[in-house]
Amino acid sequence: MSEDWSGPPAIRLPQGLDLHLELGPGPRQAGLEDALRTAVRDGRLGADARLPSTRALARQLGLARGTVTAAYDQLAAEGLLLTRPGAATTVARLPSAATPVTPATDTAPPVRHDLRPGIPDGSAFPARAWLAATRRVLARARPEDFGHGDPQGRYELRAALAGQLGRTRGVLTSPGQIVITSGFYQSIGLLASVLRARGAAELATEDPGHRTYREVVTRAGLRVVPVPVDEHGARVDSITAPAVLLTPSHQYPTGVPLHPDRRRELASWAHRTGGLVIEDDYDGEFRHDRRPVGAFQALAPDRTVYCGSTSKTLGPALRLGWLAVPPDLVRPVTEAKERADFYTETLGQLTLAELITTHAYDRHVRAARLRYRRRRTLLHQLLSTHPDFTPHGVPAGLHTLVTTPHPEPALLARCAAHGIALRGLTELHHTPAQDRPGGLLIGFGATTDHGFARALRALDEALPG
Amino acid sequence: MSEDWSGPPAIRLPQGLDLHLELGPGPRQAGLEDALRTAVRDGRLGADARLPSTRALARQLGLARGTVTAAYDQLAAEGLLLTRPGAATTVARLPSAATPVTPATDTAPPVRHDLRPGIPDGSAFPARAWLAATRRVLARARPEDFGHGDPQGRYELRAALAGQLGRTRGVLTSPGQIVITSGFYQSIGLLASVLRARGAAELATEDPGHRTYREVVTRAGLRVVPVPVDEHGARVDSITAPAVLLTPSHQYPTGVPLHPDRRRELASWAHRTGGLVIEDDYDGEFRHDRRPVGAFQALAPDRTVYCGSTSKTLGPALRLGWLAVPPDLVRPVTEAKERADFYTETLGQLTLAELITTHAYDRHVRAARLRYRRRRTLLHQLLSTHPDFTPHGVPAGLHTLVTTPHPEPALLARCAAHGIALRGLTELHHTPAQDRPGGLLIGFGATTDHGFARALRALDEALPG
Repeated sequence: MSEDWSGPPAIRLPQGLDLHLELGPGPRQAGLEDALRTAVRDGRLGADARLPSTRALARQLGLARGTVTAAYDQLAAEGLLLTRPGAATTVARLPSAATPVTPATDTAPPVRHDLRPGIPDGSAFPARAWLAATRRVLARARPEDFGHGDPQGRYELRAALAGQLGRTRGVLTSPGQIVITSGFYQSIGLLASVLRARGAAELATEDPGHRTYREVVTRAGLRVVPVPVDEHGARVDSITAPAVLLTPSHQYPTGVPLHPDRRRELASWAHRTGGLVIEDDYDGEFRHDRRPVGAFQALAPDRTVYCGSTSKTLGPALRLGWLAVPPDLVRPVTEAKERADFYTETLGQLTLAELITTHAYDRHVRAARLRYRRRRTLLHQLLSTHPDFTPHGVPAGLHTLVTTPHPEPALLARCAAHGIALRGLTELHHTPAQDRPGGLLIGFGATTDHGFARALRALDEALPG
Repeated sequence: MSEDWSGPPAIRLPQGLDLHLELGPGPRQAGLEDALRTAVRDGRLGADARLPSTRALARQLGLARGTVTAAYDQLAAEGLLLTRPGAATTVARLPSAATPVTPATDTAPPVRHDLRPGIPDGSAFPARAWLAATRRVLARARPEDFGHGDPQGRYELRAALAGQLGRTRGVLTSPGQIVITSGFYQSIGLLASVLRARGAAELATEDPGHRTYREVVTRAGLRVVPVPVDEHGARVDSITAPAVLLTPSHQYPTGVPLHPDRRRELASWAHRTGGLVIEDDYDGEFRHDRRPVGAFQALAPDRTVYCGSTSKTLGPALRLGWLAVPPDLVRPVTEAKERADFYTETLGQLTLAELITTHAYDRHVRAARLRYRRRRTLLHQLLSTHPDFTPHGVPAGLHTLVTTPHPEPALLARCAAHGIALRGLTELHHTPAQDRPGGLLIGFGATTDHGFARALRALDEALPG
């Protein structure tokens, strides 16, 4: 590199000091403003320092006087300089503007093998179909589509979902009974706040079950009470709360569907007691051995809130979820959504509606189902060679629960040491106890096909016996 | 149309009744399931009704017996039928599944002339640039980009904003100090909850000021205390609360920028008392007579939260907002965001980052500024012919406040009668009083150029005198 011996232009301050101003390229007024701003902020121009007259500074810098006057006015308007008619322009007294720069707080430690449950293969995201749908949506968008949206959600998406959920999940609903949210995480928070406002104090959730959602419910002011889970799914006969959050199609994490007798029992409970069933159909699209069992909601549509999202089909990044609610809950749930964040962004809603109505969504789900079915078969072949590990649940979803006599903490440590990310069973229990068998939730969604094969080899090494 | 005299196929039920099943097209098993499901739901197959044996029904319908068996199994798994080995299949006893269909609750009454303040021209949305940016974002997306996001926001967008806000608004920040939200509405809710958690009981807001945000703050558990506004902006000497929400660049609704002396006074207040300034820079990009005055945040970066969004530039439908916060607030604000809805959707964040880094965003803002400047000139020309209406504020933003001796309710009624949507001043006061002059907030953003000309003609007729 060649050194540059010519310093930046220096201006002579009234107090006799030289000030070096780095006049960058671009408009001269903006350049002078930035140079003066920097000089004030880094202290080279201290409080009360007198600046040259506009005439003097213009001469020194070879600028038009109007340029210097405009720059002084701008900085005065911002509060950095003081200009008084007939008096010299001075630097204002300001509190220190020094602000430490903190590094971005993003970076989670990278994992080599992602076997976390419930995350779909991002490499299979239908980018072409999504882009084509976005193009069509933008092409026919009306000006008001970029204005304020509907807290209940775009009618186009609610109509598309009402048809699609009825067709593929047997849900009995209508566009007017669907509320669009920014994902299930927000959905359960909204429902908990509505229940709380209606006087409920408790919400029953499956034990074991999703821990994060217990935290959301608790934050909303409801006490979480456990519903035990056995080989037939949730013990619905033990529900004492006025509302219950369940995963009837594919219990999380055990992977068993709710037994038909229990489905009927649950419907009777809801109608007998006026209780509310919140059905989390988190991966109901993915049944690998038969057509998916229809949603429970159809057995008690006026006592059930059906919850879905794109998180297992297209990916959680989209933050698009939906609720099919009984007529009497449409208004309170919509108002809770409006209070939370006004409404969900519009373009994503219209793009998803376009994917559904053009059947690109169903095609994507079918292809994903075949992919995950193959992977589950590979996983279970591997598990068959590790007799200490017992897989549970029906062929469905994006994960398999295995229980084992081996201590769970040591297992998780071994997996981590092999660069494998997965989940332990213990944290999913309401009250983790030592006497229960430990377990692992092994996902087969999050990777690419190739990455999954590598992950299985790593798992094979990580699992003892 | 030709009439069809052939009814749907009828099956003979064991109890001797005929049941007409509408076997739709498509897979026969699915068709039979749907037909039976419908018959159960509409009551043609009542509780305990015995179904034919699989052999008998297969023969009656000319289907393979396996098809009928599979259909019975599916409906049994869903809880609609009861199948017991050695006994006839019967319809389960279910609570009534009748669910009234409520109409969608979308439709706000259409307005012919949209002069609401603070809404940009949706017909000018840069659809081509947005689509091109989306294409590039999807083309280089990694699989994990469709997985879970960062509660603080995508680093790409935070980095793009840190540069853009510093360049165009003089904001002193870094990617690590920016938090992405789903719009200012959510932003102020998050900040209010953080202040509440830190023991604050009050938040000062401008009087007059945005009413909706007072409601959000109140819901978060803070008492809202007024800061009077005069011709120099907010009377910062009257702040008693530990935190204050202000619009320094362009006071809403009066349209005056905060006087330089008051900016310095505000900075001193923040450092003297440890108070927090929340700067709502809602339309700081739009100054029509000069370069925008820099953000207040630069005078007290360690005591100010700077808030922005795309709502006035690209439109509120995107639900994309951002906060530039002091280092000590990065974690609590990020955690509040995570509790609220986990994180903001990823694709919109990456697309906006692409728009900013390719300068398409700045180009769009410049073009919009010229458009709104022309419209403001037309509006003020019209107002000059209505001496009873006094415009206020500097040439900036997307609206002008006019005050008038005419009673405000009658004016709003006249405007509504002419199909004009705009806002009254009274509702923006903390405590609406009769002795104050009424006023109108007239927006010049929401329409197309052509629509704005028509709206002005309607306004000319609607305004008395």
